[in-house]
Amino acid sequence: MDIHRIEAAAGRLKGHARVTPLLSSPFLDEIAGRRVLIKAECLQHTGSFKYRGARSALSALPDEQRARGVIAYSSGNHAQGVALAARQFGVGAVIIMPSDAPRMKIDNTRALGAEVVLYDRATEDRDAIGTKLSQDRGLTLIRPFDDPEVIAGQGTCGLEIAAQAAELGVTEAEVLVCCGGGGLTSGIALALEARAPRMRVRPAEPEGFDDVTRSLASGRIERNTGSATGLCDAIVTPQPGNVTFPIMHRLCAPGIVVSDDDAQRAMALAFARLKLVAEPGGAVALAAALFHPDRVEGDTVICTISGGNVDRAVFLHALTQFGQD
Amino acid sequence: MDIHRIEAAAGRLKGHARVTPLLSSPFLDEIAGRRVLIKAECLQHTGSFKYRGARSALSALPDEQRARGVIAYSSGNHAQGVALAARQFGVGAVIIMPSDAPRMKIDNTRALGAEVVLYDRATEDRDAIGTKLSQDRGLTLIRPFDDPEVIAGQGTCGLEIAAQAAELGVTEAEVLVCCGGGGLTSGIALALEARAPRMRVRPAEPEGFDDVTRSLASGRIERNTGSATGLCDAIVTPQPGNVTFPIMHRLCAPGIVVSDDDAQRAMALAFARLKLVAEPGGAVALAAALFHPDRVEGDTVICTISGGNVDRAVFLHALTQFGQD
Repeated sequence: MDIHRIEAAAGRLKGHARVTPLLSSPFLDEIAGRRVLIKAECLQHTGSFKYRGARSALSALPDEQRARGVIAYSSGNHAQGVALAARQFGVGAVIIMPSDAPRMKIDNTRALGAEVVLYDRATEDRDAIGTKLSQDRGLTLIRPFDDPEVIAGQGTCGLEIAAQAAELGVTEAEVLVCCGGGGLTSGIALALEARAPRMRVRPAEPEGFDDVTRSLASGRIERNTGSATGLCDAIVTPQPGNVTFPIMHRLCAPGIVVSDDDAQRAMALAFARLKLVAEPGGAVALAAALFHPDRVEGDTVICTISGGNVDRAVFLHALTQFGQD
Repeated sequence: MDIHRIEAAAGRLKGHARVTPLLSSPFLDEIAGRRVLIKAECLQHTGSFKYRGARSALSALPDEQRARGVIAYSSGNHAQGVALAARQFGVGAVIIMPSDAPRMKIDNTRALGAEVVLYDRATEDRDAIGTKLSQDRGLTLIRPFDDPEVIAGQGTCGLEIAAQAAELGVTEAEVLVCCGGGGLTSGIALALEARAPRMRVRPAEPEGFDDVTRSLASGRIERNTGSATGLCDAIVTPQPGNVTFPIMHRLCAPGIVVSDDDAQRAMALAFARLKLVAEPGGAVALAAALFHPDRVEGDTVICTISGGNVDRAVFLHALTQFGQD
């Protein structure tokens, strides 16, 4: 995995993935006590960065293999990314989703033309369902993060960060990335290693699902011990990947862990100050920048808002409980 | 007023105003029955397109005159645009605002460093207050729309629309613009006349404040008869301007009028499908595209979301009453 693979992915994504804006607000700078730049991946197609990796992976497949269709496991954002990319290529997509995934994500995945297969997290074996379907139909598995072409696709977000920050005169910063399995985090880290070597990436995670932060601290892959899901469903994964972890271990600075309340407070500020809709898991990096400034170094912090696929009730709750007039 | 003035404004705004993205969603295309492209001016600095015109006007002033400070009348978005531009130039700004303007807009204007003078719409004479202050202090009035340099600034949004749409292969479309006094509408119309002559601009207005639509129909300036404010406060003005109307009359196709309910329904869809926060007045063009497709022509419609400065309670109401799960 290196910058050439990310550049190749960028070439395949050109004209398909959106170049999302790098935003800011003087009000957020004031809260954080430093300049805050926000990479608005909630504005990516399908409402999260996941489209980048999905499109990258599908576009890297040989035509014949892709034509037989693809399959993915996902609680929602990867699902939508794969569904849209598959539809664009005119190939079938089967998405295995937990039955308790946010309703909007299930509905959107179906609406994008994918065949959604729901399973019960507690009683059913996701992998067994997926393996059988793949074998029966000759589908190719598109992994959510632990695949070089997926990481390369997410890394295109890092190429944009480097270029957009440089336009603003910023070449040195901590870059906080909402982190689940580490696809976006490792992809951005690889891109910045080549394009903005004075930036350093730091994963941001929700309390109770801080597997990457703990893994970086111990130097080996650690698992989450808590329940299988949470408010920040988009970035809840059991452990960092076998491909992503070594990259993060080599390139990333320590992780930052935030509470669900912090994430919701950041959602309310993204609403008021950026005019953006962030989902809880997509707001943890902004939460880290705003509410844990003592854990961040430097004059400028960059953070991703990695997605905006939030059910209305969850958003209303965050705004009602944590917003200000 | 012609394209050269807009190009000059674009030169002065470069590196200051944001190039806002042109977004889309397959879900919105389906509702509208045609391709819908959304110019997200809610992502402009200060949360609305008004910063473009304010910065354009301030940057066009001779240094000595600007140094004495500026004054503006505004219910909120122009206020914030002028406040930020003045702060960037290090000059004072006095903003005369109605005491019933949205609280967020008053607070933000103050927080951006402006001196806010509130007046009672019913009992006080805004112009008398402003004239006295201007004379006493030598302040320059920055008009909200009826000023060539303000129109030129708003026109830079049209330059971007032409370029961004062309990148997507779109050179022919109706362009629906949220319209108050006509600064954005006339500016975009002038820009597109030169850069995308197969596009035609149509003002979108809320019911009860359809002065531009009626003026275009009758061929002369018509006034609003209703109350002085409404849900769509950002685009409620008594009548089109003496500078803006002739431009709109020459270049614009008929206006489209939408209900407050339509505007709120469009806000809920901007939340769900675009991950954007739109204020009611900023959502009327999207509402026209989505809910009045029979009044629009062609395969593609482009609409502005002109601002996102909405009080939390108003947004919560729109999402609760008009959102879907």
